[in-house]
Amino acid sequence: MEPGPLGGSRPAERRPCLSSRLGADRAASASLLSAAGAEPGRRPLAVAAVLPAGGCGERMGVPTPKQFCPILERPLISYTLQALERVCWIKDIVVAVTGENIEAMNSIIQKYHHERISVVEAGVTRHRSIFNGLKALAEDQPDSKLCKPEVVIIHDAVRPFVEEDVLLKVVIAAKEHGCSDYDLEFGTECLQLALKYCHTKAKLVEGSPDLWKVTYKRDLYAAESIIKERISQKICVVMDTKEGEEPVGHLLEEVLKSELNHVKVTSGALCHASGDLEQIISEQCYNFVCVNIMTSDFQETQKLLSIVEESNLSILYPVVVVSVHFFDIKSVPLSQKMEDLMWIREFAKEVRKRNILLCGLLICYPQDEQKLQESLRQAAIIIAALIKERNSGLVGQLLVA
Amino acid sequence: MEPGPLGGSRPAERRPCLSSRLGADRAASASLLSAAGAEPGRRPLAVAAVLPAGGCGERMGVPTPKQFCPILERPLISYTLQALERVCWIKDIVVAVTGENIEAMNSIIQKYHHERISVVEAGVTRHRSIFNGLKALAEDQPDSKLCKPEVVIIHDAVRPFVEEDVLLKVVIAAKEHGCSDYDLEFGTECLQLALKYCHTKAKLVEGSPDLWKVTYKRDLYAAESIIKERISQKICVVMDTKEGEEPVGHLLEEVLKSELNHVKVTSGALCHASGDLEQIISEQCYNFVCVNIMTSDFQETQKLLSIVEESNLSILYPVVVVSVHFFDIKSVPLSQKMEDLMWIREFAKEVRKRNILLCGLLICYPQDEQKLQESLRQAAIIIAALIKERNSGLVGQLLVA
Repeated sequence: MEPGPLGGSRPAERRPCLSSRLGADRAASASLLSAAGAEPGRRPLAVAAVLPAGGCGERMGVPTPKQFCPILERPLISYTLQALERVCWIKDIVVAVTGENIEAMNSIIQKYHHERISVVEAGVTRHRSIFNGLKALAEDQPDSKLCKPEVVIIHDAVRPFVEEDVLLKVVIAAKEHGCSDYDLEFGTECLQLALKYCHTKAKLVEGSPDLWKVTYKRDLYAAESIIKERISQKICVVMDTKEGEEPVGHLLEEVLKSELNHVKVTSGALCHASGDLEQIISEQCYNFVCVNIMTSDFQETQKLLSIVEESNLSILYPVVVVSVHFFDIKSVPLSQKMEDLMWIREFAKEVRKRNILLCGLLICYPQDEQKLQESLRQAAIIIAALIKERNSGLVGQLLVA
Repeated sequence: MEPGPLGGSRPAERRPCLSSRLGADRAASASLLSAAGAEPGRRPLAVAAVLPAGGCGERMGVPTPKQFCPILERPLISYTLQALERVCWIKDIVVAVTGENIEAMNSIIQKYHHERISVVEAGVTRHRSIFNGLKALAEDQPDSKLCKPEVVIIHDAVRPFVEEDVLLKVVIAAKEHGCSDYDLEFGTECLQLALKYCHTKAKLVEGSPDLWKVTYKRDLYAAESIIKERISQKICVVMDTKEGEEPVGHLLEEVLKSELNHVKVTSGALCHASGDLEQIISEQCYNFVCVNIMTSDFQETQKLLSIVEESNLSILYPVVVVSVHFFDIKSVPLSQKMEDLMWIREFAKEVRKRNILLCGLLICYPQDEQKLQESLRQAAIIIAALIKERNSGLVGQLLVA
């Protein structure tokens, strides 16, 4: 296996669009969007978004502007772009950043395979940055590849948890109430400006508590925990055996289900045509427990790592892979088994470059039923800790349950 | 070593009081407090605090009321009590909780050795809870052991990061402006009530950004990260050698200093009269790296663990202890060394009961200078991960750098 560079060299896989994945929601969006402004037979409403991101984040107390602060090593603004990108009916997304950050912004777009994004230079104030974004969307720009939209969503670059439903409400309200673009800001400051200078009938659309803004350092901590929690909701247990063939892998799966009761535990097999694993990856599962039973080495883990690397899954989030091995303390000394598995250190170093966090887990396999349950429970606690913390400092370690 | 129960059976050690530790600040508080209301020769201003804690935390989205939600396994309200307790000039602290939580509240006070706390039953509204707290402080209660205060601070149970300076400002403003107790609330709702019903000259005292309220689940995440960060600021490296005697322990200390540049790294020795280690513990260092060089086993770590256990340090926060061992891959096989150190698993299980998180760390000690530096750097990364995450799921593991 020859890991390549993280981004750039691979074909950009089209990410699943939120509303195409959720069939019912898509129909609802489509009907609402056409109800919002279209006569029968007219093309769907053209929507774009402008993200002012020229701030310096002085309240954060850190030197990096907050929109560029890393969460799990990825800049905050990339999470916001990801949230907007998932909404198919937003045709163009324009980001306004200061001149000195344009290059960095373009690198972010490339590294994380963002699509439909244009970068413009920010103005000296937030409103001037919004104006620059709107200008880029206007059709009087001769060399522009952007479509002139009917509605523009103005969205803070530091509100990463925006959902499609609130964006839809904003667009419909804009169409119905004829607000100016400024009114679409989720705040009151802009509504007041609209009232004062434009005498426009502004409409305040209620957001959800998730729509909060990253302002202080504590918000960055909160955002990190929320993101970690979201990507820790699913674990896929990969086994080289079929059900009934060798029960201990399935026992581990059962213990994971009962110990980690907020987590959805599924299983996939590599020996079948690997369709089900690809399905699990496409549903954004970022945690894999790979049970190596039939072979004494790590063939199963190697196969899994290749599939994960191929899939581009780890471009946006670090993927945790725990390579599980069983040993019977009566037949092989623990130290011998550990020595055999030391390969994991070098291997983990390699896949770390591709944002995959690999650890080994040795589970003691005593004949005593009760002791086995205790070992498996201990294994589940260790797996939960590795998935929760997602700390790259622990990659390559061989843990023992 | 015979670990006893976590709380209760030991003599409650008096915790250092914030303003007695900070000499200059103490003088300032004393002079401000006497300036605030006292004629020459008069006794210092009597101050108490009331914490309404009868809410059910419905916005949190979790079944436990937010003031009882655990952070590092300790309920949030205990952190708030700790913040108020550190302020010497607050004589009494009255907590109002619902009838069903009185027993739990008393257990919290006992388990975490809180002092100067009284518990009263909450009313049906927040203001009635405050009223119940004030009633307990009034001198017309015949069996009360509380002193009747001149100023009462009303403080939310879910604002754990309150500092002495803002409390002092509030007390001085109360004395100068003659506000009612309700006005001391850090919000506007109560100020409006005071204006409407009491025609009282309310005064709004500016707080710091740290004075935020835990309202949503994300705030609990933020609070946990802030607390973890605060107790990860200091690492004490404990060695069984003197400077110059065996350089590798000191090399590790140097690498820790350069790799973890936000952390204060100090060192203490156990072989001297252990005064300096006790000093470090009294200054609230919650992270220890114990280097075992002179003895091939874990005598040094055992000594350190005894001292930490004796000190009551781990009552409020989990203490991380990393037992470091060096091995020369040419003279002893890694597997042999690992086998020798497997005792750590059982030992960690024991001290875990006392809120001490013990892990082992084996550092490869090659002759090559550059490779040694790389091993030490790797060790620093692992130590940083263990201290940052403070995850009890990883205790007893033997990690390799």
